[in-house]
Amino acid sequence: MKYSLAIHGGAGTILPESMTREKEQAYLQGLKDALQIGEQILIKNGSALDAVEAAVKVLEDNPLFNAGRGAVFTHDKTHEMDASIMCGKSITAGAVAGVKNIKNPVSLARKVMEKTEHVMLCGEGAMNFAKLINTEIMPDDYFYSEERYQQLHQALAEDIILLDHYHKTNDKKFGTVGAVALDTNGNLAAATSTGGMTNKKFGRVGDSPIIGAGTYANNAKCAVSCTGHGEYFIKSVVAYDVFCLMEYKQLSLEQACHLVVNTKLKNIGGEGGLIAIDKEGNISMPFNSIGMYRGMLSHNKPLHVAIYK
Amino acid sequence: MKYSLAIHGGAGTILPESMTREKEQAYLQGLKDALQIGEQILIKNGSALDAVEAAVKVLEDNPLFNAGRGAVFTHDKTHEMDASIMCGKSITAGAVAGVKNIKNPVSLARKVMEKTEHVMLCGEGAMNFAKLINTEIMPDDYFYSEERYQQLHQALAEDIILLDHYHKTNDKKFGTVGAVALDTNGNLAAATSTGGMTNKKFGRVGDSPIIGAGTYANNAKCAVSCTGHGEYFIKSVVAYDVFCLMEYKQLSLEQACHLVVNTKLKNIGGEGGLIAIDKEGNISMPFNSIGMYRGMLSHNKPLHVAIYK
Repeated sequence: MKYSLAIHGGAGTILPESMTREKEQAYLQGLKDALQIGEQILIKNGSALDAVEAAVKVLEDNPLFNAGRGAVFTHDKTHEMDASIMCGKSITAGAVAGVKNIKNPVSLARKVMEKTEHVMLCGEGAMNFAKLINTEIMPDDYFYSEERYQQLHQALAEDIILLDHYHKTNDKKFGTVGAVALDTNGNLAAATSTGGMTNKKFGRVGDSPIIGAGTYANNAKCAVSCTGHGEYFIKSVVAYDVFCLMEYKQLSLEQACHLVVNTKLKNIGGEGGLIAIDKEGNISMPFNSIGMYRGMLSHNKPLHVAIYK
Repeated sequence: MKYSLAIHGGAGTILPESMTREKEQAYLQGLKDALQIGEQILIKNGSALDAVEAAVKVLEDNPLFNAGRGAVFTHDKTHEMDASIMCGKSITAGAVAGVKNIKNPVSLARKVMEKTEHVMLCGEGAMNFAKLINTEIMPDDYFYSEERYQQLHQALAEDIILLDHYHKTNDKKFGTVGAVALDTNGNLAAATSTGGMTNKKFGRVGDSPIIGAGTYANNAKCAVSCTGHGEYFIKSVVAYDVFCLMEYKQLSLEQACHLVVNTKLKNIGGEGGLIAIDKEGNISMPFNSIGMYRGMLSHNKPLHVAIYK
């Protein structure tokens, strides 16, 4: 009856000195909440797919994380969100890009997977699909936070596009949330969700909704969810690269994840990290940035959450 | 002074009996035109990137192929196009999804690669970027053709979403164009462009603009452009899978392409094909459908175009 669950809430320049103790505790509590909801499903022999969706929803509903409710502001003062989900048993996937006012983009991605013949829907079209299937739509003020709005004003003033929270120059945070799970039936799943970049223009899409880049799951080897500077993750096809290194080169999960994050991505300046799980329930959570909000648990390991190295 | 170039104009149920001799010749001439434009660049030591962009532009400008001018109608009687391009030397890429009225989506994808810090732009935002950089915009009637319009009406009547031209039930054509090239400096590049599916709804995005799925290029091994039932190509991360089989399992280009198209994709019902080129200039163009519009040439092989097996 083995099960495992890992989650992340973004990676980047997370400096202890720029954190208050209260804020740190709030982040850690947010991660715990998501892990506990996921575990409740796994412990009752629920599916990995249900567990990753539920854990990501908790993180989407938490205004601290850049996904769902906590999504950052685009240049046009809107919130454009991306998400994807993949089932390692059926090798099926769903994704949405550039959707607005959706309470839980990860659940919409799952509907794309289960209710359509498609994998990816984007923009207005994806919104029309969401309305058709009665997805929960929230008004603009649900996504409003004073801190996010100030981040936009700061970015507008400096004419830069920010990757999430922003404290000072050269501070980068890659706001994304994600989960990977192994259920008691031996099935793997992965999900990723993001609010993108502060001051984002031009309908930019990062790696989060791209199957193979930000998200990948295949019972044959592993499930992976990424967080980082999305453009590097897309060009490096990060999530599927972890799978291929295991499948074709017989690397262990730990070896594959370490090589991809700490060598391949690092060598090209691709800042960030990932969470991954294999069919034995091993978990790897490497990152090459200063910090990554992350947590894990399994049938025989207690809940653990962390921010720094 | 080795160079090679391969192109495709889509794959699917292309039956000789449903073709007129005139139409067949028109398709073959369209492929020849694209190859010749590409070769003019390669023979003068131009870049693989310039060659694939130029060849794809010729196919986008030809109303016979489902990309650019020949893009099929969406459910809303518009034309939504996707394209991507990747440079194997710099491992950089650009992509656009769900853009309208753009004369040459492949060139817009290249601008995303070269003029922004992003890889992928989608929908309205991508259109705003296109206008900002003075991309050539065409009126709706540029994309109108009576045949495409009839295809939409047929699809609407049957309430189905078609993958391109459509003649009778179970006839599928996957309208996409693409090119891969090796230039005399040893650099590889790949590009893919599509008009999507007739009667397409909900902002569906296929594999064409997804780096790793429809398009991938890396000087270390190969350049790949795909055409087929996009959802299967996304879930299988087809273009990067060819690369990984070569890089991690030491398969030859031919072995990797054959395995992916004729075993892995075929086993899951993923109809279509791909064109690929390695750093020695070898070309592979496998497909598991009845036909694939395709062509190739190299410094020591004459131009060759074909439709059927």
